[in-house]
Amino acid sequence: MSDAEDVMIVLDESECWVLLRSHSLGRLAASAAGVIDIFPLNYYADGSTILMRTTPGTKLVEMTIHSDVAFEIDDFTDEEAVSVVVKGTAEWLDTRSAIEEADRAPLVSWLPTLKYVYVRITPTSVTGRRFVRGPEPERD
Amino acid sequence: MSDAEDVMIVLDESECWVLLRSHSLGRLAASAAGVIDIFPLNYYADGSTILMRTTPGTKLVEMTIHSDVAFEIDDFTDEEAVSVVVKGTAEWLDTRSAIEEADRAPLVSWLPTLKYVYVRITPTSVTGRRFVRGPEPERD
Repeated sequence: MSDAEDVMIVLDESECWVLLRSHSLGRLAASAAGVIDIFPLNYYADGSTILMRTTPGTKLVEMTIHSDVAFEIDDFTDEEAVSVVVKGTAEWLDTRSAIEEADRAPLVSWLPTLKYVYVRITPTSVTGRRFVRGPEPERD
Repeated sequence: MSDAEDVMIVLDESECWVLLRSHSLGRLAASAAGVIDIFPLNYYADGSTILMRTTPGTKLVEMTIHSDVAFEIDDFTDEEAVSVVVKGTAEWLDTRSAIEEADRAPLVSWLPTLKYVYVRITPTSVTGRRFVRGPEPERD
């Protein structure tokens, strides 16, 4: 009978970035004035930062400006599951050059919209775990 | 050319619960002492609360005890995407009767483990959105 430690593998940071680059949907958690929220978002991982796009004036933008955020992606099959968590600081891109650079990124979006702003997360930590899914053990 | 409002549909609470009951993996966002984190978790929606199981002594348990949390599920196909966010208060189940009741819930788990504690979210709000995925419009 296996214990939890036997089936959870910690990923190194380069493995996390491979996963981040191969997905385009994640969830951003942000907190402001004691209010916590979570938002699904399309993103683009350029190798060192996470670029996201959102509608101007949203609560998301207000919550993330210059604040610590946590961003997560996951993926699973019948056999295994992976999860990557990026923690870092979010900033709103507000210079013309930064916006033009972001416009060139291959950022997909679920929601067609003409007006948007960019939010970029600069990570302070990138961690990941792989779970090998097994049968439920009998509890003592 | 469509605007964002044309393709985002707000779900009513009963639609959100149908989605919550038909999934088993979500992400919990919690914040403590200015530190925000996000965790993927299996859960069971019993119709009015969200039941989750985690390993004793984890940061997740510490962060969620009697605190406001946000929990999210999402799902998407090529045509559309849905997301449900539950906000509420998390509590650790610490009475024998509550644990026995939770043991009877059909809660699946990725990670086989012999020792666990239950966390239950009592919602203060349940909101959901459906996005019809469309082509990217030309930006002005």
